[in-house]
This record gives sequence, C-alpha cells and structure tokens, in this order.
Amino acid sequence: MITKTTAGRLPSRQRESAAPGPIEALLDEVWLEAEQQRSGAVATYIPELARADPSTFGLALASLDGRVYSTGRIDEFTIQSVSKPFVYALALADRGIDTVLKRVGVEPSGNPFNTISVDDQGRPFNPMVNAGAIVTTSLIAGNNQDEQFRRVIDGLSAFAGRPLDVDEQVFASERDTGDRNRAIGFLLKSVGALEHDVDAVLSVYFRQCAVLVDARDLAVMAATLANGGVNPLTGDVVVSAAVVSRVLTVMATCGMYDFAGEWLYRVGLPAKSGVSGGIAAVQPGRLGFGAHSPLLDGRGNSVRGIAAYELLSQRLDLHLFAANGPELGRNYRRTRGNVMRSKRVRLSAETAILDAEGSRIVVNELSGAQDAASIERVANAVIDDAEPSGWQVFDLRRVTHAEPASVGLLLRLTEHLRADGAEVVVVPPRLVTARRAIGPLVAATSAHIADADDALRWCEDALLREHGISSEPAESLVAIAEQDLLVGLSDVTVSTLEAATVTRVFPAGSTIFAEGAVADALYFVAAGQVSAVVKSGGSFRRLSTMGPGSSFGELALIEGGLRSATIVADDATLCHTLTLDAFAKLVDEDPVVGAELHRAIARSLATRLRQATKEATVMDRRD
Amino acid sequence: MITKTTAGRLPSRQRESAAPGPIEALLDEVWLEAEQQRSGAVATYIPELARADPSTFGLALASLDGRVYSTGRIDEFTIQSVSKPFVYALALADRGIDTVLKRVGVEPSGNPFNTISVDDQGRPFNPMVNAGAIVTTSLIAGNNQDEQFRRVIDGLSAFAGRPLDVDEQVFASERDTGDRNRAIGFLLKSVGALEHDVDAVLSVYFRQCAVLVDARDLAVMAATLANGGVNPLTGDVVVSAAVVSRVLTVMATCGMYDFAGEWLYRVGLPAKSGVSGGIAAVQPGRLGFGAHSPLLDGRGNSVRGIAAYELLSQRLDLHLFAANGPELGRNYRRTRGNVMRSKRVRLSAETAILDAEGSRIVVNELSGAQDAASIERVANAVIDDAEPSGWQVFDLRRVTHAEPASVGLLLRLTEHLRADGAEVVVVPPRLVTARRAIGPLVAATSAHIADADDALRWCEDALLREHGISSEPAESLVAIAEQDLLVGLSDVTVSTLEAATVTRVFPAGSTIFAEGAVADALYFVAAGQVSAVVKSGGSFRRLSTMGPGSSFGELALIEGGLRSATIVADDATLCHTLTLDAFAKLVDEDPVVGAELHRAIARSLATRLRQATKEATVMDRRD
Repeated sequence: MITKTTAGRLPSRQRESAAPGPIEALLDEVWLEAEQQRSGAVATYIPELARADPSTFGLALASLDGRVYSTGRIDEFTIQSVSKPFVYALALADRGIDTVLKRVGVEPSGNPFNTISVDDQGRPFNPMVNAGAIVTTSLIAGNNQDEQFRRVIDGLSAFAGRPLDVDEQVFASERDTGDRNRAIGFLLKSVGALEHDVDAVLSVYFRQCAVLVDARDLAVMAATLANGGVNPLTGDVVVSAAVVSRVLTVMATCGMYDFAGEWLYRVGLPAKSGVSGGIAAVQPGRLGFGAHSPLLDGRGNSVRGIAAYELLSQRLDLHLFAANGPELGRNYRRTRGNVMRSKRVRLSAETAILDAEGSRIVVNELSGAQDAASIERVANAVIDDAEPSGWQVFDLRRVTHAEPASVGLLLRLTEHLRADGAEVVVVPPRLVTARRAIGPLVAATSAHIADADDALRWCEDALLREHGISSEPAESLVAIAEQDLLVGLSDVTVSTLEAATVTRVFPAGSTIFAEGAVADALYFVAAGQVSAVVKSGGSFRRLSTMGPGSSFGELALIEGGLRSATIVADDATLCHTLTLDAFAKLVDEDPVVGAELHRAIARSLATRLRQATKEATVMDRRD
Repeated sequence: MITKTTAGRLPSRQRESAAPGPIEALLDEVWLEAEQQRSGAVATYIPELARADPSTFGLALASLDGRVYSTGRIDEFTIQSVSKPFVYALALADRGIDTVLKRVGVEPSGNPFNTISVDDQGRPFNPMVNAGAIVTTSLIAGNNQDEQFRRVIDGLSAFAGRPLDVDEQVFASERDTGDRNRAIGFLLKSVGALEHDVDAVLSVYFRQCAVLVDARDLAVMAATLANGGVNPLTGDVVVSAAVVSRVLTVMATCGMYDFAGEWLYRVGLPAKSGVSGGIAAVQPGRLGFGAHSPLLDGRGNSVRGIAAYELLSQRLDLHLFAANGPELGRNYRRTRGNVMRSKRVRLSAETAILDAEGSRIVVNELSGAQDAASIERVANAVIDDAEPSGWQVFDLRRVTHAEPASVGLLLRLTEHLRADGAEVVVVPPRLVTARRAIGPLVAATSAHIADADDALRWCEDALLREHGISSEPAESLVAIAEQDLLVGLSDVTVSTLEAATVTRVFPAGSTIFAEGAVADALYFVAAGQVSAVVKSGGSFRRLSTMGPGSSFGELALIEGGLRSATIVADDATLCHTLTLDAFAKLVDEDPVVGAELHRAIARSLATRLRQATKEATVMDRRD
C-alpha cells in the first residue's frame, strides 16, 4: 500500500477504518498514473544531483486546517529554484513592494531561466530567472552574508513549519561549479543592478538552493501562501497577505521556466519548479501541493510532477479560472419584523402592532465571505425596496470574511439608507478576524448594540414607541387582573387567583429558579424583567426575556416535573406567584377555575408554538 | 452629475433616492480621480483613430445578475484588439481546445504585439499578438470570409448582449493601410501556420477590429466571461466554462501588451486592451468591467484606463490573489437525530427511543459552493467521528454550486462510510444547476429520498425498527384509550371522551379541514396518515405528518377561532372526532373532564414547543 495518509510529521486525526479516505484514495490514484511516466533525465550539472534516484516520486497535499496527506516516497532533496518565490516573499517583507519592484521586474521574459540580460530599466526581468533571484537574495535583510542566510533559512523554515537544514555537499559543489551564475552576478554588478559583493551574494544564493526539503514540506510551504501567509501547521504569520498576492502573481506568470504559459493554461495554478525535481503549487485560499520526482523534461520541469499536477488539476478542479460557479449572493437572506421577533416576550397589544407594522423592520442577514460583488448584490436588493423611515438591521454574525472593499461599500450603503430616513443597525460577525475587519462599519452605526436579538428588540421598541408604548420601566405594578395570560378569564377566576397568589421580590442578578429544579409555582411579572436561559455547551443561551404583564413557569401547573430552563432576574423584579399546592387546592375547590387556567395556559403555549413554527419556516426557506 | 447609473440599455431597477447607491458613488470617485490623467496620445496609424476625442472617458461595471453601472461619457469606438480574447473564445468553441492549441501557442512572448515571428513549433506565440489573432480568426467556423465574419459579429454580439455593427470607414482604412499585418499574414502562410487565403483572413480580421462597442458593452462582454460563458443580460450560453477558463488564462498572461506582468502584479485581473483605448477586465465569478479613453501610453494601453483599473482593483479588492480569506469550510454544519427531528409526529415511546439513540443519525448540512478543499474538510469531520452502523444524511439543499471534483470526493466519502457499515442518504440541492451537478452522487445512494425531512424520517424509522417498532400500517385501529394525548388521564375521563367521539373516514387525498376554516373539532387518528400544510408564497409547505395514535386540531377546544393549517389525508384515514359542541356539553356536565383534557392539550403543546425551541437553538448556532 503506497498511502502514507496523514501520519508522519503530524499526529494522525484519522480513526482506524476499512477504507482510505477520499483524499488519500484520489492521491494514490494520481500517483499510480503519473508514476507510469518514465521519460526525462535527472539533472547532471553537479554530481550530487546526478546521483538522485530516478525512481523516487512523492506527492503531497496540505489543507488550510493543517492536515497533510502524502503518498509515494517522501525523500529529502535540495530545494533549488523552488526557493525563489519564497525568498522573493521574504525580500518583499523585508524591503517593501516598491523597493523590490525598482530592482527586479515582474514581466515574463520569454528567455531561458539562466539568461544573461536585463530589461530596459536595467533590472532582471523577474525574480524567477536566476538573475532576478540573485538580486532578490541580495535584498534580504542582514548586515552580512551570515545574517542574510540566517534570515533565508529561518524564513524557509517558517514556510515549511519545521527547522530546515542545508546539504553542505550540494552547496559546496554548486559554489565550485557555478560559473554561469557568477557571470550573471558580475553582469548585474556591471550594470548597477547588484549593489553587494558578488561572491557574498552568490554564497547566500547557492546555500539557499541547497536547503533540504521533501514533498510534504513543499505542500506546507505552498499552503502557507494559499492561506494568505499564515502557516497552517504552526499558525505563524510568515508574510503578509499583500506580499502573498504579489508572489502568487509572479509564480503564475513566470514559475515554470519556458512552460509557464502552457502550465497556467493546462494546470492553472501558481507554481514553481526546480532542477532537483520539486514542484510546489498553490490553490489560493484552498490548498497547497508538493511533488518530487527528479526525472526532468527538456525545459527542466519534473516529468512526473507535471503529469501528476495535470491529473490533480482535472480531478480536483484546481484551475484558477475553472471554479467560477454561481455562488455569489446566495448568502444573503432577508426577513422582516412581522415574521421574525426578538426574544422579548410581547404583550397582546404589542404583538398586534408588530403583526401589523413589523414589516417596516428589515433584517438583512449576510453570511460567508463578502466582497465587492456580493455587496453590490445586497445593496441592490436592499435599496430596491427599502421603505423610508423604516429600520434596517444588518446581521453579520455569520460573515466569515470581509474584504475591505465590502466594508467600504456597506458603509456607503448605510449612508444611502440614512439619507432616505432609515435607521441602520449593524450586528458584528462572530469570527474575530471578520469582526475586526468590519470595525469601521460598527463604529459608524451601532456600537451600542451587542447582538442580533438586541438589534431586533431595539427596532421593535422604536416602532412601539411610535404607538405610544414605552419600553421604559412602568411606574406602577401590573396586577393579576391585568396579566396577559389571564385576558378574557371570568372575574371569579381572576379574583380567586388573586387571593391565592403571593408577592415575591427578586434582586437583580438573582436566580428565580434553576434548570432541573422541581417545578412548584407559576410566576406573573408585576415589575422588573427576567430572562429564561439554558445551558448550551459551556455557556448559557438566552431563550426569552419577559417584562411586566408576562408570566413564566406555566408548565409547573400542567405537568409538574423539572424546570426546563433557568430564570434569572435581569433587574430587581417583583412577581405574583401561584404555588402548585395553592393551585391544587384552588382546583379542588372549583374545577372551573382549574379548567379556565389550563385553557389560558394552553392558549398561550399555542401562540408561542405558532410563532416558533412561523420563524422555523422562515429560517428554513432560502431564495 | 456624471453618473449614468443603471439606466440606459437596461430598465432601471433603482428607486428614486436622495443619494447615489454605493457602487455608483464609488465608480464616480474612481472616474474623477483617473480623469486627472492627461498624458498619452491617441493612436494615429489611421486617420479615423486619430480623430478620436482625447477627452472622452467612460467606465462601466456589470454584475452577474445583469445590472450594468456606468459613469462618464459612453461613446462608441472600434473594439480593435479587445476583440482578440472573444474571437479566441469563439475559435475554441468552434474547433476544440486541442486543435486550436496546435495552431496558436499560449506562451507570453516578451516581444511586441506586432512582432513577425513564430515559436519553435512554427506557431504564433499566443492569440493576443497580431500573428496569433490572425491565425485564430482563420480558425473561426465558416466556408468563406462572409460566413466567418457572420460568426464573428454574431459571437461578439452574443457576448455584448446586443447586435453590434461595424464602422465601415475604419474597416476600409485599416484594410488599406494594414501592410504590417499583411506581412505577418504572408509570413504565417510561408511557414505553414496559416492555411487560408491571406487577404480573405485579413479581411475578416480587419472587420473584426472595426466592430463598434462602448464601455458598457465591454463590461457585459467581460461579465459573460466572469459568468462562465453565460451572458448575464440575455442568459445566452455564448461559450462553455471550459473555453472561458482558457481564454482567461491567456488574458492573464498576455492581455496587456508588454505590460502584462506588471498589470497582473498591480491590478490582478485577466484583461485585454486595444489601440482605440478600450480595456475589458474580468473578475472571474464576480464582475465584468469596461473602460474607454483613447489617450495611450508608450505600450499602447489607455492611460486613464490603467489608472482607473488600479483604483478599482484597490478599492474593490479585485486582485485575483488578494481575496483568499478563510471562507473555506464554514459552510458545513452537523446536527444529530436526538436534537433535530423529522416532521413525523412521534408517539411517546418512539420519542423516548429517539431521545436516547437519535445521536446515531448524523445530518451533515452543506451550503454554498463546494470544491475539493471544502469537501476535504467535510470528509475529515465526518470520518473523524462517524459511528459504525449509524446513519449519515448529506443535506445538500443549500449547495449552490458543486465542482465535479467535489462530487467525486463525496462519492468516495460515501463509499468509505458504507465500508464502515453506515447507511448514507443524500438530499439533492434546490438549485437546478447544482442538482444536475451532483446527479451521480444521488444515483449512487438514495434516488428514492425526495427531501430532507423524508431522509431524516427514513433514518428514524430504521432506528425505530431496530427496537421492534414498525413504520408499516398497523393492522388494528388505535382506540381512544390508547391515544398518545390521553396517556395518564383518569379512566372516567377517557370513557367519557370515548362516548362523546364520532368515527369518521377520509379518503386519501381529501382535505379534512382547511386553513382559515372555523375550528369545530378535535381529531384522533385511529388509522392512516394525515399532514398539516400551510400556504407559503404560491405553494404549500408541510409542517408535520401524523399517524395512528396522534391527534390534531386541539386548538379548537382551547380557543375556537380559525384553523391555522390545512389537514390533508395522505392515506385513507380513520379518525375519532370530538366536536366543540360535544366537548362543551361534556365539560358542562363534568368540569374535571374539561380540566384534564385542557391540561393534556397544554402538556402536548409544551412538548412540541420545547422541541421547536431545541431545534431553533441548533439552527441558530454555527460552529
């Protein structure tokens, strides 16, 4: 069995199983097919490379969650030219994009990699030809060649997620035979493209080429680029996302010697190959790949490596321009305040207003990654039917990523809506990175709103205020006779209940009863506010909030048993309570009272169940 | 005001508003800034181009939903070299990728666009230099130059979404002065790269260059490429997605003359410019752009066009390699059968089993676009804690796009799970295109499962069967005494109810009562099956399904009023019914019976409300 699966350097997360996982199985198939390629020859310009075993062939894939899959033989080899994009990334990080761009171009040259020429600005054409790579290495931070090489090896190690070493024998051999690179170095010096001592720079450059890696390392290095510069194994920020986008561009146009155009056409991945048979390739935002097989074609690319990538690209749909399906804008959903309600339990009169006018409250729920195109679509939908003087909630909790442009466009959208007289409330994303990204939007709109339910409640309160219903604490207590649950009950029943209830006071923050406790009473809120919460995972989740006129704990009277939620007093709260014993006595004395109260409770539960069903139906629907 | 917004060719979908929308505002800003650029010169090689107004400058953006925004002056101009990628697309569609690739390379040449040379295989370097474009035009389907040009103009019109015309004066002038292109043509003929008559091919080529477009046309043409070959205005499939990926590749590497590398580095969009000052650019899967300003820089690219695109790329984050945020895999959610229930109303004994063992049923909900990387992540999560001999539902309803590779990997995953003894059920996507894409997966697993609820119910039934509970129709009727609602009620109440109920039979397909009807009875199912449905939009939505032992219409007894759902008999159904009148009489005679029944109803509602709350909590949570 050729599979190495996810064992190896990483702790395996796979359970024992009868069959290989889908990725392992696919990688094995590709390996078997590409392995049939036996043409090509190993590089021979130094004896150490000529000694490479032509039969060795390793293939690896790394996910952005830090899983690494590999198959075949995972041997170490010297990285050679595959180092170029990574050292270019370090130079961009050390010197800034503009400085580096002044010294090394980014234009495909159409010339061989070891060409001795510069462009019309006296720069090497790009950092993937030797001349450009040598100037790039000279730009690495450090006061001398030792410091510069330390930076190079530390940087490459950070990309790979493990400390890498140098093959000193290969280094010595390259140094002793590198006359063409020496010629390039002196030409660069002669035209002013290279400022450093030629031998010193070449010493760093030859050492950089002699760093030892394997196909799994290449996959992780590529995955670090795919992940915006963050190593998926270690979490280290190796270079910035701005640097990565430039490195990937150069890999896309110049990474595969004279095969770059056709490679991008067929395989469609930014990549870099080297003379020792390595090829690293990046699917941006998705996956990293590494391949190693020393048999090279006439252009200096690994024969099996290219065969494997062509197969991988086809079977995993990796081509940069292949995956442009209609994902866009499906991650937008709109609901309105007449259907979706806050967790604030409303009294009958309030419910009637929200039923009638709640559609003026619009909840725009965005999810997933947001960019200019997705916000263009949202903006169009929102503006198209925004009502003046309404409320617009942007619920961004499920946004996982927000490009700066999307934040800018959302800001413009909120300005537009406000100019039309709407109130705008923004609920920030749950993911820290996304929350940070939309910071300016929250600051400009609704820094005081903590969560989606608060936002909806805030809008409902504003709508109710238009109808003269204040959300401020009332000045008087809500008596039993005015309790929402008891509307329509006979006077006899109400006065009987009144006589049977006891008034209790709960300080703010106190627990009125706990989930799992024996249910022993029904509570009517006379003043203050309480919340029902349940344990969910390690934390508490709020189910509902109730104010004066609302009741809780009804199930005690129905079925006794244990409390299904904890009730906490949010403010100092005063309740009329009817104990189970008092109720039993009361029913015993007058079954009609019992029947009326049971019926009232059933009616209240039915209303809540209807609302829950309505909201679930909306949650379930997608346009 | 410079804005043209979405008016013009398209009916405006924008409401009147106080402020411009976010896209319009941004486009205006970019236009104003780029317009400051006054350097460069108009092309002068033919008098018609030299007469272009140097001050004209138009900018347009097209969404994949068919909205077009533009600003500045939207003048017509001859398309010139911007035609090249679109005619290349037509040639690929007409002749196939392999045939075209044998005749025209895809390697950036590093030479000027009007170079007279071919590569080592005797092909022009790529279809964006004149030599390559001429050979490409010669490959267009048609028996003569008229037929070929008809295909070209029809194809370009299909890309633009409107019938395009030719500027005959420009055509005549180009034909009369096109000696260099004639030289290229004869060289191509001499080396065997061109099979057709040189003058005939050049006639089509010159006419193709003289097609009249404006910046909005370029944006729509680019958006058609961004949209995988489907024109977003007309819905026409102009070319296939496979062709589009090749065209975009060549635009990325060779589209901007000798500025291609730096353009991709700075702007990061596949693009093509022309000598009349047009630039079309594509953000794959997202947006299309068009710009027109005839002042050209030394490389032949529009000065303001380049300035505008640099600004657009920065402000809309358009760079191909910039947007690689951590969106991946967030669109996967898992629930289990002990929390999430099918709409089949279960009896108490069944509920107890599902509470205890429902976790063996796993519902994997995937949403959004799926590719190899997203399925790698799903596979890892599923395999990691799959229980042998459990059930795995893949709910793909919200999948909007599925790359073939994702379908292949899901197939492999289901094979893996089955090898471990799990049952696998797949619920197909709602979107037709995505449903078609995952066809092979559905065929291989669960062609008989119609929707997500059926899938869950099927798994629940299988689990219940393990405990000896059959989902087959029972042989005997469920009597009143055995009805789930009445469990625990006193014998007196049960027998009183029994005496008050009437048995009724409903044929399969009949409506037992309709939403909005006056509620007048409670029903106990003795045999058969019914469903509760509500109108939602234009169609009916099923809320629940009930079999023998379940009851419905309880609210009639509680509050009378109108029915909130329609009940339909799925099969021939027999019910024990208790009318409101009978119940009132019964309560009048014995209030204890009324109290007990109200309490039973409240208890049943409470159980349903708890389940609804539990499911809503799960729906609301994302990992």
